[in-house]
Amino acid sequence: MPAFADRLADSVRRHGPLCVGIDPRWESLPAAIRASVAALPPLDRLAKAYEVFGRRVLELVRPHAGVVKPQAAFFEQAGPPGLDALQRLMTAARELGFVTILDAKRGDIASTAAAYADAAFAAEPAPVWDADALTINPYLGRDAVEPFLTAAKANGRGVFVLVRTSNPGAGLFQDLVCDGKPLYRHVAAAVAEWNAATLGDCGLGDVGAVVGATHPAELKELRAAMPDVWLLVPGYGAQGGTAADVKAGYRADGLGAVVNSSRGVTFPFKPDDPDWEAKVSAAAAKASAELRP
Amino acid sequence: MPAFADRLADSVRRHGPLCVGIDPRWESLPAAIRASVAALPPLDRLAKAYEVFGRRVLELVRPHAGVVKPQAAFFEQAGPPGLDALQRLMTAARELGFVTILDAKRGDIASTAAAYADAAFAAEPAPVWDADALTINPYLGRDAVEPFLTAAKANGRGVFVLVRTSNPGAGLFQDLVCDGKPLYRHVAAAVAEWNAATLGDCGLGDVGAVVGATHPAELKELRAAMPDVWLLVPGYGAQGGTAADVKAGYRADGLGAVVNSSRGVTFPFKPDDPDWEAKVSAAAAKASAELRP
Repeated sequence: MPAFADRLADSVRRHGPLCVGIDPRWESLPAAIRASVAALPPLDRLAKAYEVFGRRVLELVRPHAGVVKPQAAFFEQAGPPGLDALQRLMTAARELGFVTILDAKRGDIASTAAAYADAAFAAEPAPVWDADALTINPYLGRDAVEPFLTAAKANGRGVFVLVRTSNPGAGLFQDLVCDGKPLYRHVAAAVAEWNAATLGDCGLGDVGAVVGATHPAELKELRAAMPDVWLLVPGYGAQGGTAADVKAGYRADGLGAVVNSSRGVTFPFKPDDPDWEAKVSAAAAKASAELRP
Repeated sequence: MPAFADRLADSVRRHGPLCVGIDPRWESLPAAIRASVAALPPLDRLAKAYEVFGRRVLELVRPHAGVVKPQAAFFEQAGPPGLDALQRLMTAARELGFVTILDAKRGDIASTAAAYADAAFAAEPAPVWDADALTINPYLGRDAVEPFLTAAKANGRGVFVLVRTSNPGAGLFQDLVCDGKPLYRHVAAAVAEWNAATLGDCGLGDVGAVVGATHPAELKELRAAMPDVWLLVPGYGAQGGTAADVKAGYRADGLGAVVNSSRGVTFPFKPDDPDWEAKVSAAAAKASAELRP
């Protein structure tokens, strides 16, 4: 299997940089899907509805996107049945040819981090999430990140390290100025260093960074600070980032960023709208066209 | 139900500050437990063994500890069956009267953080982990922490925010000096502020902090900086922190810290040791006695 960075480059060249986030929310789901699971126990009801909706969204967006990013939190909210559904959805995405990013923002130390990394990437003793990439949190430091890098390398996978997140309160710690530059720049420097050992044929590496679209100046600054690093850019669409904003994350060769849209692509309808599938297709087509380099 | 802080104070007064970490590792499990699950498919095998071992450890340590801390990563490594096992283990711990801390180090923004928080604490639509407290990661900032605080308050539960972790590489970001003090002190100040609104009858609040035992000077400094904050102190025992080190985390009233031991209490034996249960009991008794204020 080619390195993660090269597989992602191939996908972006063929399908553009749109990444569709699968963040199912019960209250936003099509009424028909909710009705179809009404007889199940509470957590099974959520899990089944999330899986049915997620699978249909995968099919609808397939012509317009090469990357999908299921959000682990919503599946965890549906308990063990939800995590079963997440596992089946990851398999379905892979079988449809998507590059898969599991958005779980994991982080822990030593053998505990290795356990999360094996859940994400390893085939032994049996695959769990089998993701192409996993989002991870850098707060615990070097030896908390390294087990993820080791497992990614061993399995041809990648990680995206949180650097500058898209939420309004992100700056509380990320913007603190330490030794003359903000904390997020220190994290960016570490990511660039970890990534440097992993460069693929495409010129980018397997250790990416999460940089929100809601801070275009910082996105541009971070693109320059980490020229060989894949960026995962959330915050486009429903969170307020425009297509022009996110293009600051692209390199001159058109590679270098995947841009996530969750609600904007997957929930452009009211629950009782009989045309919801057409609206998802149209929203994916529009986002895909807007985001082309 | 009394506030989390008061329930924890009651437990520490009655049973002392020992918290037993349930971090099952296949290669360390008693050989008899591994043999008993050999016929199962790979993930079910791990899950069943972790549950059997975890339940037995709960019974063995019950006379010596009031708090247990299952580590989500190891159960996630066993996939959906492992998360089923985690759910049953959390229920078993609660039924035995333990205060339960789910060590999952979750962190995300807005409604995504709320989904993790509901999985940890909420009874609707059905309980998932039903933990008394959850460990969370502060890197994403204020609006990423607040959904956990809201859900904790609504359900009478607590959180422990990562402040200064026990791993050797923790300082890469946590020790960066920003505006004249290290990053971990900025996080500590935020925790103290969030906690101030939640003080219970015991004088401590529901927003705790994770502070490693492997940095005794910082533990003492952080005890003083956050006088009303419950500390969860990892790193005692196998990671190198001594009982004398961790006592820097106690307040004068003997409250204020729970001290975690995972390997030291739960794996004081070789897999083929027929006396493993007696060794777990003895290790828990010794740790409990050592840690009394």
